[in-house]
Amino acid sequence: MNKIEHIGIAVKNLEKSNELFTNLFGKPHYKVETVESEGVKTSFFEAGPNKIELLEGTNSESPISKFIAKKGEGIHHIAFAVADILSEVNRLKKEGFIVLNETPKKGADNKLVVFLHPKSTNGVLIELCQDVN
Amino acid sequence: MNKIEHIGIAVKNLEKSNELFTNLFGKPHYKVETVESEGVKTSFFEAGPNKIELLEGTNSESPISKFIAKKGEGIHHIAFAVADILSEVNRLKKEGFIVLNETPKKGADNKLVVFLHPKSTNGVLIELCQDVN
Repeated sequence: MNKIEHIGIAVKNLEKSNELFTNLFGKPHYKVETVESEGVKTSFFEAGPNKIELLEGTNSESPISKFIAKKGEGIHHIAFAVADILSEVNRLKKEGFIVLNETPKKGADNKLVVFLHPKSTNGVLIELCQDVN
Repeated sequence: MNKIEHIGIAVKNLEKSNELFTNLFGKPHYKVETVESEGVKTSFFEAGPNKIELLEGTNSESPISKFIAKKGEGIHHIAFAVADILSEVNRLKKEGFIVLNETPKKGADNKLVVFLHPKSTNGVLIELCQDVN
């Protein structure tokens, strides 16, 4: 795990939360992106080498909408940057971690991503992500 | 906010979770520390420029024990590194954020820390921290 690539925060209203986080960071988000396959609209804020990703569900079946319905707004996942996602997934499987998608999928921000089940990671939804070249 | 200094994760059993996160990161924690005033035992893992702090409550009145009783194990807070905590607290108060302790207090890892109320930050408990010289 090379660094925390980003922290994903589930929000009800991306526009309102963009204002809030702009006030928090003292500078605006630097991009927005919709990931149709995941049913999310996202925005990204920079904090030095790290990012904060705000996520709003685009429909009630989106994992983000379901998360908020169950737990309310708040931290949804931590993403760690990895150099080689396939070898990292293999290593973690051998260690007994539950991998949610063995085949990396396309995430926001031009990344290949794999999620680990929170049941195997102390209640923390962990994303591994590798830059797509 | 210069970077994510660390993410705090509430755990029931620090010893077991140290094993789990050692397997996750492929390397062990680099230090442990007890903060009596906060009622926590902590351990730190490195992820490049960032850290993961595991926290176990040392008694049932500890904020960490109460968090776990209410929400289960999982992410407890995000800490951002700031250069000048007092000016940052003043700025954030003016922006309408609710500051939990206006006078910075001594946290783990030789830091001065201030917390923002999750009610004012989309459900996210945010810690600001400044290195003590």
